[in-house]
Amino acid sequence: MRILTGIQSSGRPHLGNILGAIIPAIELSKKSGNESFLFIADLHTLTSLKDGEAIRNNTLAIAAAWLAFGFDTDKNFFYRQSKLAPYHTELMWYLNCFTPFPMLANAHSFKDKSSKLADVNAGLFTYPVLQAADIVLYDANIVPVGKDQRQHIEMTRDIASAVNRLAKQDIFVIPEAEISEEVMTIPGIDGQKMSKSLNNYIDIFLPEKDLLKQIKKIVTDTTPLEDPKDPENDITFKLFNLIASKEEIDQMRSNYLAGGFGYGHAKQALHEVMMRKFADAREKFDYYMNNPKIIEQKLEEGEKKVEPIAQKTIQRVREVFKF
Amino acid sequence: MRILTGIQSSGRPHLGNILGAIIPAIELSKKSGNESFLFIADLHTLTSLKDGEAIRNNTLAIAAAWLAFGFDTDKNFFYRQSKLAPYHTELMWYLNCFTPFPMLANAHSFKDKSSKLADVNAGLFTYPVLQAADIVLYDANIVPVGKDQRQHIEMTRDIASAVNRLAKQDIFVIPEAEISEEVMTIPGIDGQKMSKSLNNYIDIFLPEKDLLKQIKKIVTDTTPLEDPKDPENDITFKLFNLIASKEEIDQMRSNYLAGGFGYGHAKQALHEVMMRKFADAREKFDYYMNNPKIIEQKLEEGEKKVEPIAQKTIQRVREVFKF
Repeated sequence: MRILTGIQSSGRPHLGNILGAIIPAIELSKKSGNESFLFIADLHTLTSLKDGEAIRNNTLAIAAAWLAFGFDTDKNFFYRQSKLAPYHTELMWYLNCFTPFPMLANAHSFKDKSSKLADVNAGLFTYPVLQAADIVLYDANIVPVGKDQRQHIEMTRDIASAVNRLAKQDIFVIPEAEISEEVMTIPGIDGQKMSKSLNNYIDIFLPEKDLLKQIKKIVTDTTPLEDPKDPENDITFKLFNLIASKEEIDQMRSNYLAGGFGYGHAKQALHEVMMRKFADAREKFDYYMNNPKIIEQKLEEGEKKVEPIAQKTIQRVREVFKF
Repeated sequence: MRILTGIQSSGRPHLGNILGAIIPAIELSKKSGNESFLFIADLHTLTSLKDGEAIRNNTLAIAAAWLAFGFDTDKNFFYRQSKLAPYHTELMWYLNCFTPFPMLANAHSFKDKSSKLADVNAGLFTYPVLQAADIVLYDANIVPVGKDQRQHIEMTRDIASAVNRLAKQDIFVIPEAEISEEVMTIPGIDGQKMSKSLNNYIDIFLPEKDLLKQIKKIVTDTTPLEDPKDPENDITFKLFNLIASKEEIDQMRSNYLAGGFGYGHAKQALHEVMMRKFADAREKFDYYMNNPKIIEQKLEEGEKKVEPIAQKTIQRVREVFKF
């Protein structure tokens, strides 16, 4: 199965991305018979961020994170969307002409975003069409997504099917969404879903002291040190629960319930377990960030590998219109 | 000055296109110091027509018409948009991200078209952005347009200026619309503006007898043969007035006013003057249509000539985002 995942380069990868996307995607890519298409969706990034320097730095950090967690770029496909921009955007135009306007106007994500953002641009409006192009360009079978993206994959299926119907042949592979019903929603330091835009994230690749500072900002209630605490309603415990071993979690739960154990202690323990659990990834991340040419080289290799696939798809579509 | 004109390949060129666009554009292209970029906007065509065979035939007929009326492809630039699709569409994506959504949603042409058409697709909605890309991709200075397109050129200027402001440099040339205040509105056989979509056009490249048949369908009033007729309110006279010599027009006006001269006679005279006036163009048109390889070759030469210009523009934009 060909599995496709795109990651926007609008920020550095945080703990939410790592636990919710990077690690599960890498596990999936390791299964025999699977090949993963993993790309940095930097064309999409332009809908919200237009600072080239920031996009480049984010791209390096995202690539470094995936490599640090063991994404196998030899078995799989690892590339920047911008380096294949002519293919993605040409296909997007064709798909645009098969996308009913109301389908975009009524999309949940556009309604949500356009009500919140100052810069509501045509890129934001049409980005589900670019996303559809990203997917069908590489004949992807499976697109793992959160529930909020389910509608976009439905749109991709509708648009691609419309082209197949017109052409009376299978120009495109029709992809399936793989929606994890129990999407891991990693809480941020304020308890809301961890996200770049809410600025409530933990960056596990920070220097040790800076990471501790971020952890110390996790919001707690005001239960005094000596009193018992409710682990189930505490953000620090929830994060600890996602990272530590079963024994450590059981011990931590006891500490909470027993009292005499403060949130400061819990945060210290969370920091320690993060430093231990991510020691290897942190080291590799730093290595790649200090050697951006190695990242660049791996991406360029991936871009060379995917280009012939993109070329073939575009050729099939052009033939439909005799272009 | 660099003058740019795009023609949709949604139909064969008719008398309205020839008198209103082709002949004036060719005159303009001949002026010293001018160079014309003339392209067949077949990517735009997909917003309304998706039949590849029809698009190809229309493309040949449009190219043949421009060549038949003497467009100089050596001095100027003559190409199909689809053959440069990667450049046009990649630039379109960048411009999308600088186009405020309400600018598109409030565009006159979208409101007009979307209220009339069954297939209102995202291509139709975003086509002013593709049009903006078509223009700035080749550093065009002047875009001759009818009044209905004035708003689109304003949008092009706004979008391109937004990129220049972000980049703090002149990435794009800001184009000017050249709006002929007395746009020649050529009446169709029903008196409305001649257009493909109203199916009221005259195709001057038809075989002689078929052309006469079309002319005979021109709507007239029911004034009897022997009575005087009002030339100013007659469609046949209006068309004659656009094509014939001054002497012929004066004579025809006298015939109308004198009476004893029927609409059938006037239509016969219109047919004769068309056959004479367009004899050379009709012969050349047939020659090119019988030799599509010559058309193809001229377009390919043009496509080779414009590609380096498109490449340079895209390179300037990519550098803004460090792509």
